[in-house]
Amino acid sequence: MNVLVIGAVALGPKAACRLKRLAPAARVTMIDRDSLVSYGGCGIPYFVSGDVSELNQLRTTSFHMVRDEKFFHAAKDIEVLTRTEAVAIDRRAKKVVVRHLDTGREQELPYDKLVLATGSTPNRLPIPGSDLDRVFTVANLHDAARIKELIAAGEVSAPVVIGGGAIGLEMVEAFRDLWGLETTLIEVREQVLPGMVSPNLAAMISHHLTAKGVAVHLHEQVLELGGSSRVEWLRTNQRTIKADLVVMAVGVRPNVGLARAAGLAITAGGAIAVNSRLETSDPDIYAGGDCIENQHLITGQPIYFPSGSLANRHGRVIGSNLAGAGQEFPGIAGTGIIKVFDLAVAATGIGLARAQQLGLDAFSTFVVQGDRAHFYPGMDLMYLEMIADRQSGRVLGVQGLSGNGDALAARINGVSAALAHNPLLRDISNLELAYAPPYAAAMDIVNALANTAENIRAGRNRVIDVDRFAARFTGRADHPFLVLDVRGPANARPFVDAYPGFWLNIPQDELRDRQAEIPRDRELILVCNSGVRSYEAQITLDQLGITATHNVQGGMAAIKKWGLALT
Amino acid sequence: MNVLVIGAVALGPKAACRLKRLAPAARVTMIDRDSLVSYGGCGIPYFVSGDVSELNQLRTTSFHMVRDEKFFHAAKDIEVLTRTEAVAIDRRAKKVVVRHLDTGREQELPYDKLVLATGSTPNRLPIPGSDLDRVFTVANLHDAARIKELIAAGEVSAPVVIGGGAIGLEMVEAFRDLWGLETTLIEVREQVLPGMVSPNLAAMISHHLTAKGVAVHLHEQVLELGGSSRVEWLRTNQRTIKADLVVMAVGVRPNVGLARAAGLAITAGGAIAVNSRLETSDPDIYAGGDCIENQHLITGQPIYFPSGSLANRHGRVIGSNLAGAGQEFPGIAGTGIIKVFDLAVAATGIGLARAQQLGLDAFSTFVVQGDRAHFYPGMDLMYLEMIADRQSGRVLGVQGLSGNGDALAARINGVSAALAHNPLLRDISNLELAYAPPYAAAMDIVNALANTAENIRAGRNRVIDVDRFAARFTGRADHPFLVLDVRGPANARPFVDAYPGFWLNIPQDELRDRQAEIPRDRELILVCNSGVRSYEAQITLDQLGITATHNVQGGMAAIKKWGLALT
Repeated sequence: MNVLVIGAVALGPKAACRLKRLAPAARVTMIDRDSLVSYGGCGIPYFVSGDVSELNQLRTTSFHMVRDEKFFHAAKDIEVLTRTEAVAIDRRAKKVVVRHLDTGREQELPYDKLVLATGSTPNRLPIPGSDLDRVFTVANLHDAARIKELIAAGEVSAPVVIGGGAIGLEMVEAFRDLWGLETTLIEVREQVLPGMVSPNLAAMISHHLTAKGVAVHLHEQVLELGGSSRVEWLRTNQRTIKADLVVMAVGVRPNVGLARAAGLAITAGGAIAVNSRLETSDPDIYAGGDCIENQHLITGQPIYFPSGSLANRHGRVIGSNLAGAGQEFPGIAGTGIIKVFDLAVAATGIGLARAQQLGLDAFSTFVVQGDRAHFYPGMDLMYLEMIADRQSGRVLGVQGLSGNGDALAARINGVSAALAHNPLLRDISNLELAYAPPYAAAMDIVNALANTAENIRAGRNRVIDVDRFAARFTGRADHPFLVLDVRGPANARPFVDAYPGFWLNIPQDELRDRQAEIPRDRELILVCNSGVRSYEAQITLDQLGITATHNVQGGMAAIKKWGLALT
Repeated sequence: MNVLVIGAVALGPKAACRLKRLAPAARVTMIDRDSLVSYGGCGIPYFVSGDVSELNQLRTTSFHMVRDEKFFHAAKDIEVLTRTEAVAIDRRAKKVVVRHLDTGREQELPYDKLVLATGSTPNRLPIPGSDLDRVFTVANLHDAARIKELIAAGEVSAPVVIGGGAIGLEMVEAFRDLWGLETTLIEVREQVLPGMVSPNLAAMISHHLTAKGVAVHLHEQVLELGGSSRVEWLRTNQRTIKADLVVMAVGVRPNVGLARAAGLAITAGGAIAVNSRLETSDPDIYAGGDCIENQHLITGQPIYFPSGSLANRHGRVIGSNLAGAGQEFPGIAGTGIIKVFDLAVAATGIGLARAQQLGLDAFSTFVVQGDRAHFYPGMDLMYLEMIADRQSGRVLGVQGLSGNGDALAARINGVSAALAHNPLLRDISNLELAYAPPYAAAMDIVNALANTAENIRAGRNRVIDVDRFAARFTGRADHPFLVLDVRGPANARPFVDAYPGFWLNIPQDELRDRQAEIPRDRELILVCNSGVRSYEAQITLDQLGITATHNVQGGMAAIKKWGLALT
């Protein structure tokens, strides 16, 4: 069997190596336009930041061998042709026309089975100056090397990142954290990570970015880049700023030109169409990784989710199927995590906006709780949001933040695994997560999150989100209400002093005895540290006949993380 | 409604508080023999160690209120009677006879619904000296306080822990880590954590304990404790050692006396029998926590799994059901984690021995891989073992070790959630776990583990475990074989030099070219750093007609962790 693989990063090598292990006699050739292959592209921001010192570290195996043409030949018995571009696929003749970029020579390579691992191309904004020198996308190791070279040479003082998605935020950190550059982030939407987290969580991330000295401009459109020989400034609909290096991180699009020209089916979303065995419309041609879409487990709809991890899993399935295994790749929940300075941000399933777009009567629940037992040293707060369907009680997604990314992954991974099985809130209430005080609370935050969601769904816990609270707080002169702070006096006093007549304090355990002090003619917004005691307070107040109350989700911990300036 | 709860730690308070939130008008009374209630018993080792400085930290809420009688009255509207023992349940009259321990007075408390949160009692070995002063079990805060008091007073220099289960190991760490005491651990079985992990993983844990300066005696039975007024020495079937404080951590048994006397059904395993709604054989009486058994999701059989986390989840279900919710508690996978000095140890599902006991043709797979991208700073190796059924390909359990407990939990939690749905190996191959280089490899270790298991199941990867390798290495004079080290020469050289003629080195990528050097008349045991390259080597050797080979699972990393002294 003669197998040709177009594209030699992530998916391609994985499929090729898997096939060779199953069918050592197969003849496998990989081609790639680039001179560098089989690198960890997800590591680029960490190379630029300096966390990874040598570019080759992104090209080596875990046992320190560089994955170049020689490596694939000797260790894997796979031939790799670099600087070789696929020009056309002749499906009838089962040949691919390739061009050797260094010589211009064209050649026909025959195949029995073909793998399209063509990946994606980063978008460039169609604006003036977009093609100036020092305007980058983060596409490959050459870009990465050039960016780091410029920084190391002291030629960058004002980098600007356009796009507040995962790669944009990682590049912002790369510029700011170790190099200390005056870094600007511009995002056209009203929040960072718009496809990943809620406005509330995004506000917390923006607050963190700002605290780290990043200039964050949201809801702002870049109109023009300018400079004489290279980029020097950037103009948005709000301002003109200095920019001596620009990274455009405004999404990627699947590379489907070759497939389309060969008459393979393309999806409505513009990706190469595949079935569950990752076969294209031609059963002799497979595709996976960043050039295909996946099936979303929650929505049942296609989702474009470029990811190095997904590409590797696709690659193994394709490699197995090349050897006749007939394996199916399941749907995905869109599970992801990213590091943003001292925060980790993760999500699985869908967010509230997406759920509502789908016509679901969805609601969100926000819980702040320790990542380990509250008495255990080093305990840090974790911030999780759950999206569920009010009608069915079905859990649609969980997303959140933590200073400890591994601890956050411990929660998100549990939910991610469960989401494949259509869990209801009660399933997540009882989800079995590993417990010991150094690693979790006896009632894990994930269980608590589902419990809280169930209380909200039942109407027992009537909540207000932090962003809504912030808006109401700012407009309190026009639409009056009172804050009833149910914490102990020591916690509440600064706020009572700062907002006399507006911020009341009656500890939750004194509410019954001091009910005469509670105004009955004003709407009350209840706060405590995390939203737990204020929920108890709400139940007590309900019993006392005081029902015009809302409980701030996540309490003062969420308010502080959000960055609302109080006192 | 009048609800009585017997037992006011973990389950009891949880059930009581949940009921009060659902049905604020319910009258709820909790009784407990102890003067201290609603504490985090799992925190006791961390209080003894000094990680938790004040005993009250184990009694406070996350907002620093002590959960005493006053707290429950004021904050929860729940009455708590401490130092009050339940003597008998009169189910016909629906009354519980209680005795006030301080006065000896007896009283009848009526109930509409009763909750048995009677917990468990630590076992004491029935040996001479078992009742000497300073021989403890870790049952409650009084024990904890007394142990710490003795250490702080300098009265302990040679503590001995009997029992290498979770609590035993936590107590060993408590004595040794911060206090630096000369600590001995004695376990009657051949390994530590016998109910939780495999002999291989247990050997790695023992090696770690030994490296931390703990004297570990396995397969050794304690026969007698001795001393004049208090314990001074301990005698086993192997030795007599000094012991000025002894902790017996030899399991716990459910407290069922009250239930049995009241005629409630008791299981064959000696726990209070409950249905899936956690009702006992009397529908007006619920039970949960450490006095019941759970249904094991993998075996379908009852499992006694005392756990603070489980008790809390039981408590919520009971609280809901007291209010008429009719909720069911699902089976469990027996998921757990513990900290052992610088290691975390976790498991979910069942181990190989248990699977074989059940008559399954089970096999185990061992993988060593980074807990994050191999190029990312701070990457640490993680050691995971998967147990699967050869026949069906069903995954039965995963267990492992890591220096980073949160990262380990991230893997175990994902598998734990999946185990509820009878996953096959291919489901775990494609399990969707959160990926970014700071938190995972592009092919996560959990996916790699299932992939490796699938290769072993298919007979492509023929493996030998580290403990078997160690045994064969030791007996190599009698049953000769050769080690073929397929790493680079720099890694292999010290071993080649140390074991001339026995330890050969041909790097994996040179095997084809150097096949003439490979002896064809001897069994070969293949090693690399982690077992990945040696698997590739095995496939290449198969092609060359050299098939008498075995691949050491986990490679040199596992051998080193296991503590086999090489070179």
